[in-house]
Amino acid sequence: MSNQVDLNADVGESYGAFRIGADDEILSYVTSANIACGWHAGDPLVMGRTVELASRAGAGIGAHPGFPDLLGFGRRNLQISRDEAKAYVLYQIGALEAFVRRTGQSLQHVKLHGAMYNLVSKDAVLASAVIEGILEYDPDLILVAFSGSRFAQLAHEAGLPVAHEVFADRAYAPDGTLVSRTSEGALIKDAETAAARALRMITDGLVQASDGQDIQVRPDTICIHGDTPGAVSFARAVREALENAGVRIRPLREFIG
Amino acid sequence: MSNQVDLNADVGESYGAFRIGADDEILSYVTSANIACGWHAGDPLVMGRTVELASRAGAGIGAHPGFPDLLGFGRRNLQISRDEAKAYVLYQIGALEAFVRRTGQSLQHVKLHGAMYNLVSKDAVLASAVIEGILEYDPDLILVAFSGSRFAQLAHEAGLPVAHEVFADRAYAPDGTLVSRTSEGALIKDAETAAARALRMITDGLVQASDGQDIQVRPDTICIHGDTPGAVSFARAVREALENAGVRIRPLREFIG
Amino acid sequence: MSNQVDLNADVGESYGAFRIGADDEILSYVTSANIACGWHAGDPLVMGRTVELASRAGAGIGAHPGFPDLLGFGRRNLQISRDEAKAYVLYQIGALEAFVRRTGQSLQHVKLHGAMYNLVSKDAVLASAVIEGILEYDPDLILVAFSGSRFAQLAHEAGLPVAHEVFADRAYAPDGTLVSRTSEGALIKDAETAAARALRMITDGLVQASDGQDIQVRPDTICIHGDTPGAVSFARAVREALENAGVRIRPLREFIG
Amino acid sequence: MSNQVDLNADVGESYGAFRIGADDEILSYVTSANIACGWHAGDPLVMGRTVELASRAGAGIGAHPGFPDLLGFGRRNLQISRDEAKAYVLYQIGALEAFVRRTGQSLQHVKLHGAMYNLVSKDAVLASAVIEGILEYDPDLILVAFSGSRFAQLAHEAGLPVAHEVFADRAYAPDGTLVSRTSEGALIKDAETAAARALRMITDGLVQASDGQDIQVRPDTICIHGDTPGAVSFARAVREALENAGVRIRPLREFIG
Repeated sequence: MSNQVDLNADVGESYGAFRIGADDEILSYVTSANIACGWHAGDPLVMGRTVELASRAGAGIGAHPGFPDLLGFGRRNLQISRDEAKAYVLYQIGALEAFVRRTGQSLQHVKLHGAMYNLVSKDAVLASAVIEGILEYDPDLILVAFSGSRFAQLAHEAGLPVAHEVFADRAYAPDGTLVSRTSEGALIKDAETAAARALRMITDGLVQASDGQDIQVRPDTICIHGDTPGAVSFARAVREALENAGVRIRPLREFIG
Repeated sequence: MSNQVDLNADVGESYGAFRIGADDEILSYVTSANIACGWHAGDPLVMGRTVELASRAGAGIGAHPGFPDLLGFGRRNLQISRDEAKAYVLYQIGALEAFVRRTGQSLQHVKLHGAMYNLVSKDAVLASAVIEGILEYDPDLILVAFSGSRFAQLAHEAGLPVAHEVFADRAYAPDGTLVSRTSEGALIKDAETAAARALRMITDGLVQASDGQDIQVRPDTICIHGDTPGAVSFARAVREALENAGVRIRPLREFIG
Repeated sequence: MSNQVDLNADVGESYGAFRIGADDEILSYVTSANIACGWHAGDPLVMGRTVELASRAGAGIGAHPGFPDLLGFGRRNLQISRDEAKAYVLYQIGALEAFVRRTGQSLQHVKLHGAMYNLVSKDAVLASAVIEGILEYDPDLILVAFSGSRFAQLAHEAGLPVAHEVFADRAYAPDGTLVSRTSEGALIKDAETAAARALRMITDGLVQASDGQDIQVRPDTICIHGDTPGAVSFARAVREALENAGVRIRPLREFIG
Repeated sequence: MSNQVDLNADVGESYGAFRIGADDEILSYVTSANIACGWHAGDPLVMGRTVELASRAGAGIGAHPGFPDLLGFGRRNLQISRDEAKAYVLYQIGALEAFVRRTGQSLQHVKLHGAMYNLVSKDAVLASAVIEGILEYDPDLILVAFSGSRFAQLAHEAGLPVAHEVFADRAYAPDGTLVSRTSEGALIKDAETAAARALRMITDGLVQASDGQDIQVRPDTICIHGDTPGAVSFARAVREALENAGVRIRPLREFIG
C-alpha cells in the first residue's frame, strides 16, 4: 500500500518549573512535533525552546491545541460550544506560530490534544468549527486526525490536507475506535509487537482489532507517546523496525497536501 | 507642529461571563484599538468579536499584551526576566493575529498593557527584549510607547516604527512621567480641559507639568480610557474639540512607519 | 404543608476588576447567601467582603463551590473523577470558611454551582463523593440540593442535613427536572407568576409541570437569581408576595438540621 | 544554646499531571511539612494526599501559601496590596485545613513561599497584614519566619508563636540576609559542610557570614530543600549529623508556642 510514514509525538509539555518529557531525545526519532500551546501544557518560554529544538531536529512543527484545563492536562472532557471550539483552536495556533516565524520555517500541521482530540473526532458540529478555523487561518495547514474519523472525513471534504493518524501501541475496537485506556489489553507495551502492527498498517492498511478481525486504517502518521516510562526506547525500536523493513520515515509536509 | 493625531483605546477586556467596557461606542470615536490578548483580560471569543468590531469601525487593530495576571487585570508589577518579556509578548501578538487574518486586515500596532507598559517604558533590558520579539515577528508593526520614554527611543534606534503616546486626562510630572493615579490632581476629569491639553500637545508639542513648567511631548496618539464612568462622552468631547480645531483624527498606519 | 421558606442567591461573583451582580441589594431580600469560592467566580478579596456583607445582612453564609473554569463561569460540564469532586469541594469550602471565622459566625450551608450542581444532582458516584467530603469537614453543614434529586436523597440517607431547593422562575419538566434554559418558556420572567408558583409550592408542595400536570416538590429554599437584569426587583416582588401571604422568610439554619 | 531543632521542607508541589519532588522520602527526614496550597503549586488532590503522607510520617503540617503565579512557581515578585496579602494567605490556609481536619490533626504552622516569603520578610505593611490574617484565623498557629527578620519580630510582638528559620545550605550576608542564589558561593552543596553549619547554629547560635564574621541566628527550624537533585541524601546527611551530635529533631509544635 505505502512505504512511507510520519512519526509524530507530543512535545513541549513542560510548564514553568514543572518539567515533563524527554523532548530532545524523542525529537531524534520522530518527524513531526506536536507542540503544546500553553493551555493544557506548555508556556511561552517552553514553546519558543521547543520550536527551536524541533526545527533543529528537522521535524515538522505542529500546533497542539487543547482544552483550557492545565489542572487536567487537557484530558478531561469540557463541554464547549461551536464558537468556543473554533476560537480556542485559532488562539493556540496563532500563539505557537509567533515562535515558528523566526525560525524561517512555517507551521506544518495541527493536531488536537487529549480530550479535545477525542471529542472533535466524533462530533461533527465541533469538527466543522475547527475545520472552519483552520481554513480561515491557513488552508495549507495539514490536519492530523484519527484515521477513519468523521473529523478526518469532514476536513478532507472541506479541502484541508489531512494526515490520517494511527496508534501502534493501542488496541483497536472492532468499530475502528481505540479501546479505552482503562480496559485490559488497551496498551501494547512490547515495542516489537507495536512495530509489527505499525508495519502491517503501513504495508497492508490493516490492523487486527480486539475481536480478532482485521480493520482498515490509513497510516499517514503514527503517534509515538513521549511521556511514558521507556518512551524513548519504544520510539527508537519502532523507528528501527520500520526502517529495517524499508519504510521511509518522513515529515508530513513531504507527502501530504 | 502637526495637525493630525491618532486616538487609541483599550477594548476587548471582557472575559467569559465578566463584561467590561462599552467597546462598540468607544470604537466610534477612536482610530486605533488595543485589544486584550487573554492574559490580563480578554478571551478567544471576545478577541474574535472585538477584532471584527474594530475592523468594521475602521480602527487600526493592535495587540495589547499584558502580564499573566487576570486577577490583577495586569495592573500589578510582576518581576519577569528578559526571556519571559519577549516570549510573553510574542505569544499574545500571535494569538491575536489569528483573529485578524480572516478580516483581510493586518495587525497595525502593539501596545503593552498596564504594569507591563510602565515597567518596560523605563527598563532598558526588558524594553530591548520586547523590541527584539516584535522585530522577529514583524518589523512593520508600529510600537505604541510612552512619549519620551527609553522604550520609545530604543525601539526607534532598532528600526521599529514608533508611535509616541500622550495622555490628555493625566497630569504630567516635571520629568515627563505621569503623576501617579493615587496623587491628588493626577486625573483630569473635565473633558474640555483634557481636550485643550490635547490640542496644545498636537499644535505646540507642549504640555504643562504639575509644577507649572512646560515640557515637550510628541503626540502621535492620545490614549482614551474606555472603562471609566463617562468614558464614552469624554471620548466624544475630546474628539469633537480636536476636529473643531482642524486636527485630523487618523489611524496610526496612515502616518507612522 | 409549610409556612416558612428560605430564599437563597448566588453572590460574591466578582473577580478582580471584573464586577458582577448587585450583591448588597440582593442581600436585603434573601436569607441565605451562596458565596463563590474563587474557582468559577470570586476571589479572596471579594470573598472576604461578601462574607461581611452577608453577615451584616443577617443571611446564612454558604460555600458555593464550582468547577475550575473561570472562563466558562462554571457553567460547562467538566468530566471529573470521584476523588476530584470530593477534593474540589473540600478545598473551596475550607477557603471560604477562612473568611467566615473572623465574623464570629459559622458556615451555614454548601450549594454547588452551575454545571457541578447539575452533574452531581444526578450522578450517584459524584454525589456520594461530595457528601463524603462534607461529612468529613463538618457533618452539621446543610446541603442545598435540587428538590427530589438523587443527590438530596443520598445526602439525607448519609445523615447530612438537606435543604431541598426549588426554582420559582423556571419551568419544570414532567419528570421533576428543570426545562433547559434554551427551550421556549423555560424562564418565567413575570415576578407575580413566579411568586404565585413559589407560594403554591410552599403551601401545597406542588408545581405545575410543562405538560400541565402537577408534580410534588419540597421547597425548603427558593433560588433567587441575582445576576439577571431586573434581578433585584424580581427578588423584592417574590419576597413581598410571600410575606403578604403569611409565609415566614427565614435562613435555613433556623429550621433545617 | 539549644539541643533541639525542627527540620522543615516544602512538599506537595505537584500539580495535576506535573510531578515534582520525592515527598515520601523527604518526609522521612523532616519533622515539619510545608504543603503548597494550589496557587504557586499543589492542587486539591495533591494537597489531600500530601496531608495524609505527612500525617502518617508524624510531621507537623503547615500551610505554605504563595503568590497566584503557577507559571512562575511563586518565585517572582508580585506587587500586592495589604488587603490582598491578608486575603491570599487566609484563603490558602483555609483551603489546606479542609484536608487536615479529617486526619484528626490540626494545622501546626504557616510558612510563606518563595517571593512572598522574601517580600513579607522585610515589608512591615505586608507583614502586619499577614500576621493579622493568621491571628484572625487561629492565634495558636506557629509562624515560620526568617530568623532575625522584621516579620518574625512583628509576629512575636503581635502575640503569634514564631519559629525562627535558618538555612544550612545557603550563604549569609553580613547583614544577616541570604546571599542571592545567583551569586557565587550562595549555595552550599556539600552536605557535611551544611551539617556543620547547622550544628554550630544550634549549639552556638552563630553562623559565619560571607565576609568571615560571625552573625547571630536563632535556629528553631532548618529549611531542607526537597526539589533539588540529591535533596534526599542531603536531608539524610544533615539529619544524621545532627542526631550524631546529640541534637533532638522534633516538630515545632513540641517546643514552640
